Amino acid sequence: MKLKVKDMDIATGGTQIAIVNDKDARALDLHHMDRIEIKHKKRKTVAMIDIGQSKRAVPKGSLGLFEETLEAVGARQGSKVTISIAPKPQSVEYIKKKLDGNRLNQKEMNIIVNDIVENRLSDIELTSFVISSYAHGMDMKEIADLTRAMAQNGDRLVFSKQPVVDLHSIGGVPGNRTTMIIVPILIAAGCIVPKTSSRAITSPAGTADTMEVLCPVSLSVTKLKKIIDDVGGFMIWGGSVNLAPADDKIIQVEHPLSIDAEGQMLASIMAKKASVGSTHLLIEIPIGKGTKVKNEKKARDLAKHFHKLGQMLKIKVKTIITKGDQPIGNGIGPVLECRDVLSVLHYDCAAPQDLLKKSVWMSGILLEFAGKAKKGKGEKMAERLLKTGAALGAMTRLVEAQGGKIPALEKLVPAKNEYTLRAPKNGKINSLDNISIAKVARVAGSPLDVDAGIYLHVHLGQKVKKGEPIITIYARSVEKLNNAKDVLKQLDGIIVK
Amino acid sequence: MKLKVKDMDIATGGTQIAIVNDKDARALDLHHMDRIEIKHKKRKTVAMIDIGQSKRAVPKGSLGLFEETLEAVGARQGSKVTISIAPKPQSVEYIKKKLDGNRLNQKEMNIIVNDIVENRLSDIELTSFVISSYAHGMDMKEIADLTRAMAQNGDRLVFSKQPVVDLHSIGGVPGNRTTMIIVPILIAAGCIVPKTSSRAITSPAGTADTMEVLCPVSLSVTKLKKIIDDVGGFMIWGGSVNLAPADDKIIQVEHPLSIDAEGQMLASIMAKKASVGSTHLLIEIPIGKGTKVKNEKKARDLAKHFHKLGQMLKIKVKTIITKGDQPIGNGIGPVLECRDVLSVLHYDCAAPQDLLKKSVWMSGILLEFAGKAKKGKGEKMAERLLKTGAALGAMTRLVEAQGGKIPALEKLVPAKNEYTLRAPKNGKINSLDNISIAKVARVAGSPLDVDAGIYLHVHLGQKVKKGEPIITIYARSVEKLNNAKDVLKQLDGIIVK
Repeated sequence: MKLKVKDMDIATGGTQIAIVNDKDARALDLHHMDRIEIKHKKRKTVAMIDIGQSKRAVPKGSLGLFEETLEAVGARQGSKVTISIAPKPQSVEYIKKKLDGNRLNQKEMNIIVNDIVENRLSDIELTSFVISSYAHGMDMKEIADLTRAMAQNGDRLVFSKQPVVDLHSIGGVPGNRTTMIIVPILIAAGCIVPKTSSRAITSPAGTADTMEVLCPVSLSVTKLKKIIDDVGGFMIWGGSVNLAPADDKIIQVEHPLSIDAEGQMLASIMAKKASVGSTHLLIEIPIGKGTKVKNEKKARDLAKHFHKLGQMLKIKVKTIITKGDQPIGNGIGPVLECRDVLSVLHYDCAAPQDLLKKSVWMSGILLEFAGKAKKGKGEKMAERLLKTGAALGAMTRLVEAQGGKIPALEKLVPAKNEYTLRAPKNGKINSLDNISIAKVARVAGSPLDVDAGIYLHVHLGQKVKKGEPIITIYARSVEKLNNAKDVLKQLDGIIVK
Repeated sequence: MKLKVKDMDIATGGTQIAIVNDKDARALDLHHMDRIEIKHKKRKTVAMIDIGQSKRAVPKGSLGLFEETLEAVGARQGSKVTISIAPKPQSVEYIKKKLDGNRLNQKEMNIIVNDIVENRLSDIELTSFVISSYAHGMDMKEIADLTRAMAQNGDRLVFSKQPVVDLHSIGGVPGNRTTMIIVPILIAAGCIVPKTSSRAITSPAGTADTMEVLCPVSLSVTKLKKIIDDVGGFMIWGGSVNLAPADDKIIQVEHPLSIDAEGQMLASIMAKKASVGSTHLLIEIPIGKGTKVKNEKKARDLAKHFHKLGQMLKIKVKTIITKGDQPIGNGIGPVLECRDVLSVLHYDCAAPQDLLKKSVWMSGILLEFAGKAKKGKGEKMAERLLKTGAALGAMTRLVEAQGGKIPALEKLVPAKNEYTLRAPKNGKINSLDNISIAKVARVAGSPLDVDAGIYLHVHLGQKVKKGEPIITIYARSVEKLNNAKDVLKQLDGIIVK
């Protein structure tokens, strides 16, 4: 069938969609989300169709095309194109197989993930894959196959030097910026550390957001390889590189349903690590109110699965279960967290001790694990690398290689409007709820307002006298500050008893 | 946040979608398919968002709206609107519940179906409901609850007279137009018969397509009520009325994955019947190659479920399992099938005997079932209503009430290009494969070319001499005829042995 192109003047950045008038669709026996091949001169592409009911959108005899498809076939408003029915990609058959409760093998996972990455699946098909994997579950072999498929479909970084050391925290604890201290310690000890991190989704700041206070976190793969050669490591935003890109598309489906599919989480984390060639990986699983993992039993099960998956993928894995019942450090929000991190790297006496100790402890584990320190000597080595300024030196080189500069600590100033919550009576801090603190910091503007957030004057169990400061909220506008105060009151997550 | 409307000049006829620029989305912490409330002056509506990456589609500070949403808030190009985050509808929580393997109750099914009908769910959410119901299955109570929810969310027809008699065939047998004979017989016997039928999806003609040769099949609910009062029954296209409309949206999800979820099929069929107030229902389950139900065991299981569901919904159900290994009647395609139907109603000596006998048999069952005939006397009564012309009279009144006219038989002429397949040798018809015949008729142009299709000169087991005609294909163009001949050769479904 020959049709005349209507330029819809939309780019969605994803799947190729073409709009066919209902009458033309009936003539070709086409249904919503069927695929058509579109030919224009010598170029062709496959798009999925949406059926337009109204004459106004796309009249009979026309084909409504989005920017991606116009580009793919080199057509524009008024071009004549030929359409014909195109077969479904093979992966749809495998999705159906999983849907019917069967296991998928490596080849099938590969084809599915490749079609996800290449935008060949409709929302319905992709959702069916995610949902049926969740409903029927995946066994460890399937998870390993999915992980390999995710790592292989996208860019990969390969380094000649080893060990390639990596770490990952399951998250849920505000202010937990240990990564920005551990990475320079490891680099200073001679490890290769290609660290990708996420931005905040529901938290006040992700490592990538806090790192961005110091330098750009979106760099090309060529640039990253050079930085590894020159410095030994980087800290960037994972979303800026094409490493295991299927992940983001799967999350787009899980997000609206708040699905927390363990198999897919395992695959997603390990695929990112496999795509940068990690040899040694430390996984932190915090437990406590507001963290992703609810109790120790679940944490131990999850740890077991990480170990098993590591074995199958030939990545050495260590796991630690940590207490995550309160924020780490004093600052919450990119600028305030960055100040904490730098004061630890400066080995400043005012540095938050909880953040320092936790970072030294985790660095020690990794240094021993990667063979850089003898058994039992890791923490000592980490502390020495901090004290001597070796870690700060590594951080300085890393930040400069990424195109930034380490500022003086006094330049890291929080937003100008502030409100301090004070103890209503003498007592002990009985609750510093992660979820409440994250929410208040976000309402105050964090992470987009990088200098918005919270400063914690106290920690759990600490004694306070009536009128002593507990937390200070910082915001760019009075309105945001007031909203944050309202949320603070409403959530009632900070309790003095 | 205040934004300026960009009119995207598209109407999709479904869910309300708004396109937000990536930068604005990040400021409001909005993700793909999150919901926003859009306010314009005193009007407001809820839409789901797509995130536009490019400045060209929707620049920062603008909000791209489709026709449905522009209309809902009375806005146009350049209007100023305010957007804020809107909560997910409650049904998303229940979908999550099903996804996690739990059962849903009547209230929850109601809320889900209502949100489906009102276009409040995204493709991802709707797919999750369909897929998780399929993956985890539904028990009979859930199926009954879903059926009630589907029947209640949409228009309903309520009649003062009884019995309200209905029939449904699971399908897969070409030419099986018994409905168009049984309905007038039942009307002639004094039953109320509000029959909705489907159009062809993968078959050469649905009852609605064949009926449309005689009269319009899309009528308003007001008109339908009047026809019931005047004539006692109608035969229309189910898609033209708003009876159990959730069904079509569920099918849109199942279709691309070729899912055949029994629970949803049961609910879909029974909801349509419940929405027209059926009291007595006959379900035909054909078995044989190419039919939907593969063997007798599966047919018996399905029959059991229909009986059970009927009990729960207080609809009296009878089921029959029929042989579906070859087409019924001689004509395949709307006009050719219509000729068969009318010749049976005329009680013409040339009428296809298989279609006549099957229709009389099924009418007999229904007449006894509905209390119109004594036990064992139903078939006799049905035959008499045919012979005396009472059924033809009822059909004439029905067709005229719907705005059509019964044509003379000789006016029902097939398309002008024809090809006759002849027996290659003396022998017996060993295969008249449903799938091959359906496919050939579709390629010849059926059902859109109403006069295209196939005439069967023989039936299974019949003896033929070399050179005798087996089937004749009719098509509007030589090209379509040649395509049909090619497919006929390729599929090789007609065998003389």
